[in-house]
This record gives sequence, structure tokens and C-alpha cells, in this order.
Amino acid sequence: MELIKQKIIKEGRVEGEDILKVDSFLNHQIDVPFIDELGKEFHNRFKGEKIDKIVTIETSGIAIAYGAARYFNVPIVFAKKTESRNIDDDVYESEVFSFTKQKKYKVRISKKYINKGDRVLIIDDFLAAGSAANALLSLISQANAETVGFGIVIEKYFQNGGKILRDRGIRVESLAMIQAFEKGKVIFKWKIGGEKWKKIYLCY
Amino acid sequence: MELIKQKIIKEGRVEGEDILKVDSFLNHQIDVPFIDELGKEFHNRFKGEKIDKIVTIETSGIAIAYGAARYFNVPIVFAKKTESRNIDDDVYESEVFSFTKQKKYKVRISKKYINKGDRVLIIDDFLAAGSAANALLSLISQANAETVGFGIVIEKYFQNGGKILRDRGIRVESLAMIQAFEKGKVIFKWKIGGEKWKKIYLCY
Repeated sequence: MELIKQKIIKEGRVEGEDILKVDSFLNHQIDVPFIDELGKEFHNRFKGEKIDKIVTIETSGIAIAYGAARYFNVPIVFAKKTESRNIDDDVYESEVFSFTKQKKYKVRISKKYINKGDRVLIIDDFLAAGSAANALLSLISQANAETVGFGIVIEKYFQNGGKILRDRGIRVESLAMIQAFEKGKVIFKWKIGGEKWKKIYLCY
Repeated sequence: MELIKQKIIKEGRVEGEDILKVDSFLNHQIDVPFIDELGKEFHNRFKGEKIDKIVTIETSGIAIAYGAARYFNVPIVFAKKTESRNIDDDVYESEVFSFTKQKKYKVRISKKYINKGDRVLIIDDFLAAGSAANALLSLISQANAETVGFGIVIEKYFQNGGKILRDRGIRVESLAMIQAFEKGKVIFKWKIGGEKWKKIYLCY
């Protein structure tokens, strides 16, 4: 998607070995008209599918899910990361290992908000090794609901999470795919039509 | 606001002594067209003011801030609650005591995303004792920015946070105000025109 490419070129920054920072528009400050456009793009990609619900995970997924949900006209349910007095005990639960934070945490969704047979679109900001993705798949599966696919803003393709999901036959639509990080540069994998891809080198 | 009143009557539930659960539309499942209407109402109330930015706090504030930001056409910045590798060290920081969770936590905003002189509208789901509200005020004040006011979905009026802010001359607009909890019932404080108020008793 051209819009996200231009946005990353203009505002993204590489930090350390493998972190692309997008705090200025995606996960600290939120550029609302931009996120609306991402939502529209997810809707274009999945509009042939019946979608009953969008599922995401707190925190950074919520705004993106909101942008998409307006086009699909469905509710959002976000998986909660922390124990809280304000969530029901009657929950589906799964576990995530965060590579960024180097720790495990639990994610939970109240059984009330995913119904048997619901067709669910999962939306998130990043897909890397796929730990959060697998936890969300597990929650949806526990509810006997069906995952229609993933709508991801930025996929770290080299971390293989997306590949593993696609190999399992799960549809994954990523608006930008990172092929690799090299010396402070991001190399994108970009679809140029049909099954043809090219690498795009971007400097910061 | 009539819409929130009807929604709470239909879907809200009282738990324990003083918890109003609104998980079905506000802070676990998100009813997007409903939140859009709340955003429109906040815009109606603050449309006479110049607003440069909406500030909220993760997690439950984000969707509501998004609903509002679309009408104000401004970016959102959400204060982060946890230490994270993915946030800059160069942050404004303050502390919140959560009565719900009975613990203290820090909230932080990157210095890059609030500028000196910015006119900020704070949006959040609940206002109770005002600890989160005061932390956000502190972050905005540290940035030499100006708080135009608060847009709150549900104010627990009996916990006095809103009263203290109003006594300091800060504008607080709450779409629903809870006067008290009594034996599993919520008693709302409702404005019926001018400075006249009435109590509304709701049963669940």
C-alpha cells in the first residue's frame, strides 16, 4: 500500500538492530485520517468476506481496529493483557511471548463477546514471530468461532510469523512487509502485481 | 446525553458496591457507531474551542478518543502505562493511583508529541477520584501546553474527582454522572436544563 510506504519513509525510524519505530502515527501519537485510510484498505481487501466481528489486542491494535470497524460496520473486541477486577472470570485465555519485552503474558477475552460461528477478522499493528497472532487464533478457536484472516499494518516478514500462518492456509494481508534490516536501513518486500515481488531499499 | 443513558439502562451492570460494568460497548467490546456518537457529542460541547490535540490514557480511552478526534480533525496522543523498549527515554512522566486495581503506576508521554502552547482536550472513559485526570494534567503542564477541558463518558460524581477539577476552574464535560450506588442500583445525576438537576433511579 503506497500510503503506508510513504508514511514510513517520511516518519519511521530504525532503532537498534530490528526495531522500526512508528510512534508518530501508529502507536503513541495516532494520525486519525491516516488510520481511517488503513481501515478502508483492509475493507477493500476483505470486502468479499462475511465478517461479524473484529478482534484485536490492547493497546496499539485498538485504534487500527476502530478505523477498520467503521468500514465493516461490526463491533470490536480487544483481548486484554493484564489481570483486572473489571473483567469477568468467565474468559478464554491464552499466552503470548513478547520478543520486544522478552516476557510472557496472558491474554483474555470474555466468553460473552465471541459467539460460536462468528466470522472474525483479526487486526493488529505488527506481525513478527506470530506469538500474539497465535494467541488470538487460540482464543477464537476456543469460542468455536472462525478466523477469516489477519489484517496487519506492518509485517516483519523475516521473523516468519506470517509465513507460518500462510502455510497453515490462513489469509494474512499486510499493508507493508519488511524483508530485512541492514545497517539502520529497512528493506521492504513489495508486491508489484500478480505474484511478482521486488525489494525496496529505504534509507533513514 | 440521552443515548448513553439508554445504553447504560440496556447494557450496564452494577457489580459489588461501586462498579458499573460497561464491557459490552465501551471497554472490552467496542460499539463503534455508538462511540462515534459520543465523539460527535464531545465535539458539540467543545466546538467553540480551538483544539490542537486530544490526549487520553491507554487502554479504554483510545477508542473514545478516536471517535472524538474524527470530528475535531486532530491527532490523538495516548499516555502509556508501562515501561516499554519501544518508547523514547525523553518523556514527561507522572503517577496514577488506581482505586480499581489498588496500585500505583506511572504514565508517560514522549516529549515529541505535545508541544508548548498546544491546546489539549483530554478524553477518557471514566472519571472517579481523579488520579488519572491529575496525572494527565501534569503531563500537559510539564509540556507547557494548555488543557482546554475534559470530555468524560461516565463520571462517578460521588468520588469527587470532577468536583475538585471544576473548583479549580477546569471545564469537565461528562456525558453521564453517577450520583451514588445503592443496593445494586445506580442513581444518576442528570441535568434537565440550565443549572437544574434531577436524580434518576435506574434498576438492573
